[in-house]
Amino acid sequence: MTQQRQATVRLVDEHGAGGKVREIFDDIKRTKNIDFVPALWRALATNPTQLELVWTQLKTLMHPDSVGRQTKLDAKTRETIALAVSATNGCSYCVNSHTAALKKLGVDTETLGEILAIAGLFNQTNALADGYQVEPDVLPPLE
Amino acid sequence: MTQQRQATVRLVDEHGAGGKVREIFDDIKRTKNIDFVPALWRALATNPTQLELVWTQLKTLMHPDSVGRQTKLDAKTRETIALAVSATNGCSYCVNSHTAALKKLGVDTETLGEILAIAGLFNQTNALADGYQVEPDVLPPLE
Amino acid sequence: MTQQRQATVRLVDEHGAGGKVREIFDDIKRTKNIDFVPALWRALATNPTQLELVWTQLKTLMHPDSVGRQTKLDAKTRETIALAVSATNGCSYCVNSHTAALKKLGVDTETLGEILAIAGLFNQTNALADGYQVEPDVLPPLE
Amino acid sequence: MTQQRQATVRLVDEHGAGGKVREIFDDIKRTKNIDFVPALWRALATNPTQLELVWTQLKTLMHPDSVGRQTKLDAKTRETIALAVSATNGCSYCVNSHTAALKKLGVDTETLGEILAIAGLFNQTNALADGYQVEPDVLPPLE
Amino acid sequence: MTQQRQATVRLVDEHGAGGKVREIFDDIKRTKNIDFVPALWRALATNPTQLELVWTQLKTLMHPDSVGRQTKLDAKTRETIALAVSATNGCSYCVNSHTAALKKLGVDTETLGEILAIAGLFNQTNALADGYQVEPDVLPPLE
Amino acid sequence: MTQQRQATVRLVDEHGAGGKVREIFDDIKRTKNIDFVPALWRALATNPTQLELVWTQLKTLMHPDSVGRQTKLDAKTRETIALAVSATNGCSYCVNSHTAALKKLGVDTETLGEILAIAGLFNQTNALADGYQVEPDVLPPLE
Repeated sequence: MTQQRQATVRLVDEHGAGGKVREIFDDIKRTKNIDFVPALWRALATNPTQLELVWTQLKTLMHPDSVGRQTKLDAKTRETIALAVSATNGCSYCVNSHTAALKKLGVDTETLGEILAIAGLFNQTNALADGYQVEPDVLPPLE
Repeated sequence: MTQQRQATVRLVDEHGAGGKVREIFDDIKRTKNIDFVPALWRALATNPTQLELVWTQLKTLMHPDSVGRQTKLDAKTRETIALAVSATNGCSYCVNSHTAALKKLGVDTETLGEILAIAGLFNQTNALADGYQVEPDVLPPLE
Repeated sequence: MTQQRQATVRLVDEHGAGGKVREIFDDIKRTKNIDFVPALWRALATNPTQLELVWTQLKTLMHPDSVGRQTKLDAKTRETIALAVSATNGCSYCVNSHTAALKKLGVDTETLGEILAIAGLFNQTNALADGYQVEPDVLPPLE
Repeated sequence: MTQQRQATVRLVDEHGAGGKVREIFDDIKRTKNIDFVPALWRALATNPTQLELVWTQLKTLMHPDSVGRQTKLDAKTRETIALAVSATNGCSYCVNSHTAALKKLGVDTETLGEILAIAGLFNQTNALADGYQVEPDVLPPLE
Repeated sequence: MTQQRQATVRLVDEHGAGGKVREIFDDIKRTKNIDFVPALWRALATNPTQLELVWTQLKTLMHPDSVGRQTKLDAKTRETIALAVSATNGCSYCVNSHTAALKKLGVDTETLGEILAIAGLFNQTNALADGYQVEPDVLPPLE
Repeated sequence: MTQQRQATVRLVDEHGAGGKVREIFDDIKRTKNIDFVPALWRALATNPTQLELVWTQLKTLMHPDSVGRQTKLDAKTRETIALAVSATNGCSYCVNSHTAALKKLGVDTETLGEILAIAGLFNQTNALADGYQVEPDVLPPLE
């Protein structure tokens, strides 16, 4: 018999949270334009310092408009990186989350397939380059 | 005393190769518009079947124009995925190769920093989501 | 409450597929001598180019007889590599798939234990060698 | 429809085991002061040599008192390493097991959060250092 | 012939930096009580936003006194986590850096061996648990 | 300017070692039929308990004849697993070591290419299966 899977900590209740945690939960919903706090943030909230550090980073890098920051990469490219990394690491929660984000941005399943095909290809060539211990080609000098 | 590092196989000589290997070497240089065969391909050529399989994939996915294929992702996004995966896996040869490719496409170091910052962030959150064993949020049904 | 787990894309229906996808689905069943299309291939089929590239590779490397190719490794060794890699990466789908393939080839649970014991051992020594940053021993010159 | 998840081998029955496996099962329960044999050990028991090798290691390193060994790290630090590694590798069984062990040692969720925050941070900086291919700073000579 | 290895970006000069980068460089030296800026920070400085985000995190988590934060883990435990993660990921720069930090904290090579032995062991058991797809044991309910 | 790379601990001198370390060093050379102690073992010897645990494991699993153990896998298959795992993890020392071992067993570079091609392929499909979060196909009941 298998059991129900669950997180290793009790997720902080979205509505019961107060103080700094509550403020960050509200900011997450406002910034991401969603009406619930995703489970990862509710787990991180068991250590408010951790919650704040991760959210500050993610908000700055993934929601640059919300902090008035200029950025070089558009939202699709940013989420594409997130999915490629998560597929490489095999993180279930993260793959689900970033696939949903890409769909919300209008990415169709054929494009999703192209992202994953390329991520898959380089997981292959990474193993090959490491498997042969190939030394880097001589690069042009740094500009 | 440390030794010179080198690949675990003798790289196939670019000019001595014949037959199918020679054809693929020529195609690599033509398709990538470079005047030498990068070391990884010279290692893969020790098994011509392997060389052909990896090149067919990489040519199709990363150089779609050369095979007349429509693609959803532009060249910068494709190389961005390659770098994010390679940084995640810590593959030295691959990081060097794809950083050079991005620079050739006009990507500056600040943008490179943004790519790596986002790749770094999700390596962090992947470990956190796995570290808490957070179950995926309920996703909307597949369209 | 946890939810039913499912893939992030709607799997392509085995019987509804047409054109190139249908041909590949048929080839998968014929080559692998099974009467259904495994879920991974149905996911890959959401991007037919991707399906074809991965299948061409897997057919050539893992079913060499079907393409008239000479090979140096027998079927058990090939699936053994697949399981060792999948256990190292912690890929649930892949571990299940390659364990089933090994059982079909007559591998018993004791042998399975030996494969995993060796894979486990080298995940340990890999971390140790990297953890001490040991430089490679001086190897004899390449052949 | 998804299926019940289960291990890829039939777990050795705790009470049906005999001989060396039975002795090790008893030693596991006595050493860990628990009244059941955790599932991983029941899987490893399908290959008794493997069971013995892994148990000898784990008993020596994680339960040094039971073998009369002096140790430099206390139990919390040892389990902290175990959790950090397991979160990095994304091993579900292991994260669950070592989180439970830490809780049994009195570690609260805030401390757990600090462990994971630090593990997460260094997964990030690992990707960054590899992503930039930064060479090690010159270290002081070995003592 | 192999080449000199170098980072993929030109490291920001420690003495030429101005503005926010200069402030952070000074803070790194003051907080870590060292007289140079380690190479990773000089690479991160090519994107000042990235530099600030990573430093804020690292300072808060690894140098809690400097921000007046209470912490549950002592400095040795924190660096131990860093080394265990870095060995698991095989990050050369990071292993060197955190080994040096542990030595500075008075950790001898025998203790270093114990840290790595435990990190190695769990890289092994992670592969075994994933290789057998063992489901988590039923845990006691969350506190 | 880059520095000479070296291990993070002073390797134990092969000839200066005494007691248990000396015995194990002798056993390593005798069992592996080599006339020097590879660098990894000299690093592990900084913690003799660790040295003994890893050597006991490796001797039992990789040199079964030396301990009078029956084994299901031959020497080439065992080293093939070692190389596949090491390429997947990108461990430089280990890839070099196991490639040398395979060559010593008579494996030619074309076969080496087949091993790495298959290891590469499954690093790709692992990322794809995880990237799509494909659930395992229903397996036949355990025999």
